Parts: sequence; structure tokens; C-alpha cells
Amino acid sequence: MANLDSVLSCLDLNLDRSVERLSELLRIPSISTDPAYADACRQAADFLAGDLAAIGFDAAVHDTPGHPMVVAHHDGPKGAPHVLFYGHYDVQPVDPLDEWKSGPFEPVVQTMPDGSQRIVARGSADDKGQLMTFIEACRAFKAETGGLPCKVTIFLEGEEESGSPSLNPFLDANRAELAADLALVCDTNMWNRETPAIATGLRGLVGEEVIIRAANRDLHSGYYGGAARNPIHVLAQILAELHDDDGRVTLPGFYDGVAELPDEVKASWQGLDFSEESFLGGVGLKVPAGEKGRSVLEQTWSRPTAEVNGISGGYTGKGFKTVIAAEATAKVSFRLVFAQDPEAVRAAFRQFVEARLPEDCEAEFHPHGGSGAIQLPFDSPVLQKARQALSDEWPKPAVMIGMGGSIPVVGEFKRRLGMESLLIGFGLGDDAIHSPNEKYEMTSFHQGQRSWARVLAALGEGR
Amino acid sequence: MANLDSVLSCLDLNLDRSVERLSELLRIPSISTDPAYADACRQAADFLAGDLAAIGFDAAVHDTPGHPMVVAHHDGPKGAPHVLFYGHYDVQPVDPLDEWKSGPFEPVVQTMPDGSQRIVARGSADDKGQLMTFIEACRAFKAETGGLPCKVTIFLEGEEESGSPSLNPFLDANRAELAADLALVCDTNMWNRETPAIATGLRGLVGEEVIIRAANRDLHSGYYGGAARNPIHVLAQILAELHDDDGRVTLPGFYDGVAELPDEVKASWQGLDFSEESFLGGVGLKVPAGEKGRSVLEQTWSRPTAEVNGISGGYTGKGFKTVIAAEATAKVSFRLVFAQDPEAVRAAFRQFVEARLPEDCEAEFHPHGGSGAIQLPFDSPVLQKARQALSDEWPKPAVMIGMGGSIPVVGEFKRRLGMESLLIGFGLGDDAIHSPNEKYEMTSFHQGQRSWARVLAALGEGR
Repeated sequence: MANLDSVLSCLDLNLDRSVERLSELLRIPSISTDPAYADACRQAADFLAGDLAAIGFDAAVHDTPGHPMVVAHHDGPKGAPHVLFYGHYDVQPVDPLDEWKSGPFEPVVQTMPDGSQRIVARGSADDKGQLMTFIEACRAFKAETGGLPCKVTIFLEGEEESGSPSLNPFLDANRAELAADLALVCDTNMWNRETPAIATGLRGLVGEEVIIRAANRDLHSGYYGGAARNPIHVLAQILAELHDDDGRVTLPGFYDGVAELPDEVKASWQGLDFSEESFLGGVGLKVPAGEKGRSVLEQTWSRPTAEVNGISGGYTGKGFKTVIAAEATAKVSFRLVFAQDPEAVRAAFRQFVEARLPEDCEAEFHPHGGSGAIQLPFDSPVLQKARQALSDEWPKPAVMIGMGGSIPVVGEFKRRLGMESLLIGFGLGDDAIHSPNEKYEMTSFHQGQRSWARVLAALGEGR
Repeated sequence: MANLDSVLSCLDLNLDRSVERLSELLRIPSISTDPAYADACRQAADFLAGDLAAIGFDAAVHDTPGHPMVVAHHDGPKGAPHVLFYGHYDVQPVDPLDEWKSGPFEPVVQTMPDGSQRIVARGSADDKGQLMTFIEACRAFKAETGGLPCKVTIFLEGEEESGSPSLNPFLDANRAELAADLALVCDTNMWNRETPAIATGLRGLVGEEVIIRAANRDLHSGYYGGAARNPIHVLAQILAELHDDDGRVTLPGFYDGVAELPDEVKASWQGLDFSEESFLGGVGLKVPAGEKGRSVLEQTWSRPTAEVNGISGGYTGKGFKTVIAAEATAKVSFRLVFAQDPEAVRAAFRQFVEARLPEDCEAEFHPHGGSGAIQLPFDSPVLQKARQALSDEWPKPAVMIGMGGSIPVVGEFKRRLGMESLLIGFGLGDDAIHSPNEKYEMTSFHQGQRSWARVLAALGEGR
């Protein structure tokens, strides 16, 4: 561990210079969604490729139909694992500008009354500050040891805040160059200021739109009401049957592939300082509404759901119109966990609807995406190594958490490159990403660098 | 009956001149919804008041904030009943103009291959031709007998096609002048070419909008899905429970005041040449969807309904958004029959919803109108007299029918003036009212005049 100690010291000694480098990157207004900032996006890519080349990476900027990708390679010790680090250099727009207390692209280091420091600028937490934690760790390894403990590919995109339109074609076209043993993704939060977190599960998603049709035109409810089939009633009936009284989804086979949490994980989640009351209270709710007998963390992290995300039919404007609609539509999504098969769930939903259609009705379906859950095995060796490394760095041991939503790139890495991802990030819930006065704690930036140094060292060990 | 025979002969002899008078009225483009035709509406009112004065009515044109009303009085024999005849002189717009085979306001009498004749013009059937059948009957009575068999008030409005905004204030302000023993309304159809019809029941209507609210803002279904209450699910569940498996409405007390049809009426409806297959087939349906064990005519004429006329919630645009909506809305209407109380139905619905709200949800209600059903007692003497009079005129006996929808003026006559209405009209289903090439059959016009002569004579008898 002599090497690691000197790397950590190097990071401590060079913190100010690393803040300067980050500030230089933060000054580039790389807003990906606004074409006016296309040059700035390229400038950010060039800056990063240049910085990586300076460290000793074989770095290149790759054109895409949108903003460029940065890909940089560095070899590792023989037999060491190959990791792909992912981050994004683009940022969100800055409106409303007048709510910023300093210029969004004029980074400042602010000292708070408690003595803590933060870097304030658009992109400081999302994701420039986070991606630089990894690059600084690599820089320190190179400075202190002349190499890196793993083979490392760094992959930085510039369209994450605008839907990543070029990502999938780029992954497909560069599969050989990007494939690695494991992806490291730094775009998430810590559990709290003292507790690092590794997201080990991301729920998958199946989206389906269903249109129920009855008569061939809208009908007058006086003339036809009582005799004509009302597709809104049919749709309501079907949607009402999607859950049983215990909040479980009633689609046949829906729970195939859904595993129970290991007791250890369940216990660790119960040990998290998470308040169901404040989680729900923050949005005006009091009572967990989902599957009975499950904690809110289970409900949102490790249990699958069916939600109607939109419904419409008939007259929905102001006032009233006594119409029997010709059709009614719902957009329904399913969050998936563990090994649930998205296409099996889609098929089960379609069958469920078809089986409940009365005579004279027909259903039309439109798929809106489908991806399975991401679930790192709880006993995975890399997970255990990363947990230990993070626990060594922070005041409290690292926790393994779930995430209710999806992070598309993680699914694509799995699907297109066959890689699992370790999601480790140092953001905090109050970083105001996407909002005015975005900030990144100096502790996040500094201990984030140290964390990556520890993780890289741990992953490179025992080969 | 000597008097009646001569009146009928007079109508036969003067048919051509009555067509000329109707044509003069049809040439006036009294489109009430378009302010550009306000002068034409007044011109039509003036024409009618002048014509009624020429017959011997005490006729006046009354200004309103909208188009004027025509009110004309004529005395009757001592002790004779007082009838109020209602019609409307305004017409629908004429778009699309290029689908008219002759000018909409250039009436022509067209002879069909089978020798039948029709009057083609906007308003020929709705409602200028219909209202003139009554005026021509009065004219013939005056010419042949010097008087009318009943005391008659004629009340013609000019805003029926644009929502009758001035009607209720005018009824309230002129209650004394307009009140009569019975209203005669001529704005409906025959059962078919050979069979006259009297509408004895019109369903009432209660409209309610309900908004179900859960969280205080839209939520991300990844982050909250599984734990947060989804108001679309709650709404779907409530709406699904509104009907039982037999198609009956489940609101407690909903069927209070709903009478069964007299056997005689039920039998007469079964005897009508009505095809459920073509009624439903015309709109692409095959199977009656409502209350089990009821014919389609019962379902639409004499049974109450609950229909969801509109539903909306969450994301309803193109594509997909994984949102858990803060609220969901439905517009629900109830068609009422016999003595159902609109406000009791409204209260029952609200209770039904409230009783099904889970914790964390609240419901907001907005009333959208409420009016009870109109039901002429099947054994009413005036109904029996009118039936006989119509049966004497036409090839087939008159039938008593129901109407699934509402005719607002009939409810207002009942509510504001305490009068029942006899709905007798001579339109046919293929008259193309509100469409290009609107027509009125010469038989409708001619035998309509004769029908009113017979009805007036019958109502005046036996005093």
C-alpha cells in the first residue's frame, strides 16, 4: 500500500492545482442542448483530450453527428483488469440566469460559515467535477508510480443532457475499442455527506401505449347512451384490475425473475437513515401506496411496478360535452427488477388487455422502449473491493443502494458491450444540479479523487 | 267534424301558396350563431310577426340581448284549452357551401324519381318548415271558421341553434304572457315516412367533473414509483366500480324514481320496426353494451345511464413520459328517467367517490348542469287526443316514443312555466338538418299542416 499512500498524499498536495484545472473546464459553457454552444462543447472535448494526453493517455476526439466523444486509453499491468470510465462534459442550460449569485461559467470557491468549501458553477457537480475526480486520481498515480493499477479507457460524452442521440451508434461502431471488463460510472450521489454509496441495482423500464376503440366515431351520449360500448369504461376496468388489493401487479408471470433481497442487504437498507415520512411528506403524501409489507426503499429500489403515466379519452377541454368517445388511450409503464424480461412483461400486458376486451372493442398497442433491470450480484468481487475502498476513505462505511429509475448508458453498456457498471459518485442531494447556483463540495472533489485512487488500487490488486 | 273537413280541404287547396310563403321565409339567411346575419334574424322575426298579424294574431317582436323573440296571441272559444306553440326561426350555418346542389337560401321544390317532392333549403326541416305547418293550420282555421279551436300563443325564438342564451331570462320575465295549459313543440321527427310519433319522454342529465389529487406535484415514476399514490389508478378504480357486471349503475339509490314501462308501451316499442343491428351497425358496433335484459330502445329511452364522457391525467402528448401525475380528471354524466332527482344523483356520485378515496387523496367536484327527465303520463288525455288525431291523418297509427337526449326548452317550459309539452314533428331521419342540401318532404309539410289542424280540433273538443 506504499504506492497508494503516496498517491493519496500527492492528491492532497495538489488539491489547489486540481481545482484550477476543474475551473478551467467549468469556464467552457458546454451546453449541449443549445446549438449556439456547439463550439464550446468541442472546446471542452479538446480540453479533456489534451489533459489526458498530457497525463500519458492515448487520447482522441471523435466526431459524431452531434457533439464529439473523447476516448482515451492507458495500458495497465499485465493481467490487470480493464476498466472503462464514463462521464459527460456537457452541462444543462443556465436559466434563470438572474437567480445565479455568481456567473454560471465563472467558477468560484466559496467558504461557508462552518468552514466547508464548495465550488460553484454550472457543471461543478454534474458532471465535470465528478469526472475530474477520476482523471485527478489517474494523474496522481502516473506522477507517483509512472503507471496505472488497471488498464483504463476513459470515455466522455457531450450529449448526456440532451438525450445522448449519438451514444448508441457510437457504442455499436466502436465496440472493440470500448469493450472492457467493467464500467465505472461517476454521475451519482453519496448516501449523505459521510456515507459513500454504490448503486448496485437500477430498475428497468417497459413502456406501452394502449388505445381501446369501440364505435367508429364519437357518439352522442343521449342518443346512444345505454346501448353503445364506452371505451373509457373498458379502459378504466382493465387498468383497475392491474393491481390487486395488496398492491401487487396482477399480470400473469409478472413476478417471474424477481428475486428477494439477501437478508444482509435488507438489513443494511433498514439501517440507512431514511425517513419514509420525509420522503413522502416532501411531495405532500403520508402513506406508502404500493405493495403491502414492503418498505418504501424496497418498493422503489427492488420491487417492480405498473404505473399509468397518462390517460385520455373523450372530451377533456373546458366545460362539458356529452360524448361517448370512439377511443380511449393509456400510457402504462412497468419498472422492472432483477431478471424480469421486458418483452415477456410487454406480452403479458397485451394479453391481459386482450383477454378483457368486450365484444365490439379492439386494442392497439405501441411499444415505448423496453430494458431490463441492472443488478450487480451482491457478492460480486469487484463490488466488495469497491465497498472496502470507499469505506476506507469516508467516515462511514459504504452502502449498497438501489435506484428506482434508469441510467440509460448503464443499460447500453450491458446490452451493447456486455459490461456491468459500478456506479460510484460523490454528489449530494443539495448540489442543485440543473438549477441555479449548482455546487460541488470540496470534500466531494477531494475525497472523490482519493476514493478513485483507492478503488483503482483495489481493483488492480490480487491479479 | 264539418269544420275540420273544410279546414283540411282549405289546406289541400292552398298547398302551393303555403309553399310560396315558406319559401319567402327560407330566403332569409337567419343564421343565429354568426353576428353578420343579425339583420337577417330580425328580418325573419318581422316576417313571421307580420304573417301572424295578417292571420289575426296579436303579434309582436320582442328585443332581447341576442336575437328577437316573436310572441303572438289569439283567443279561443270560452273554456277551450290554451296552448303555447314553440318553434325557432334561426338556422344553422351552411358550410361546406360547395356541397350544396342549389343555394342554401334559394329554396327549390325538387321532384324525385318516385314522384315525391321535397323542399330543399337551409332551415326547410329545422325548423322553418315545421313551424309553418302550425301557422298554416291556424290560417286555414281562420279562413274557414273565423276562429281557432283553442286559445293559441305562438312563441318563436331565434337562438335555438346557438345555445338559446336569451331563452331563460325571457321566459322568467314574461311568465304571465307565456304561461298556458300545454306547450306544443314542433322540432322533432316522425318515426318513419308513414308513422307519426309523439315523444313522451326525454331523459334528463346530470353532469359532474371530478378531479382526484394525490401528491402536490407530478412525480418521477422511477424515483417514486411503487411508493406514491397514483391518482389515475384511483380514478380508474372508482370509474370501474360505477357499473356492475349486468351493466347496472351501482350508485346507492340511483334507481329511486325509475318506473317500469307500462306493458302496453313496452309492447308498442317491441312492435316498432326498429333494428338494433342497424342502429348499432351504423356506428360500427354489434352488441348492445348496456343494462342486460333490456332492449336497445329501453336502454336509450327509458333507462338511466352513467357515462364517462372524458378522462385525462398525466402525460397525454406524443411519445412517453414516466410521470406519476398529481391529479386525474373525469367528466361523468348521468341520463335520468321518470322521477329520478338530479341533485340526489349528484350527491350519491360524490359520496360514492369520497367513500372510495384512499388516504392521501382528495376529490374536487364541479357540477355541470342538472335537469330531471320529462315524462308525459302515458294516460294523459291530451296525449290520447293527439295520438288519435295523428293516427287519423297518416297511413299508420301514431307511436309514443322516448328520446335519449334532452331538448332544453321542454325542461325550461316545465321548470319555469309549469307546462308539460307535446312533442310532435314531421321531420325524417334523412332530412340532412345541419348538413348540406337540407330538405323537408312535401308530405311532411302538407300532412304536417293537416296534422296540426286535427290536433288543434281534438284538443278543442269536449270542453
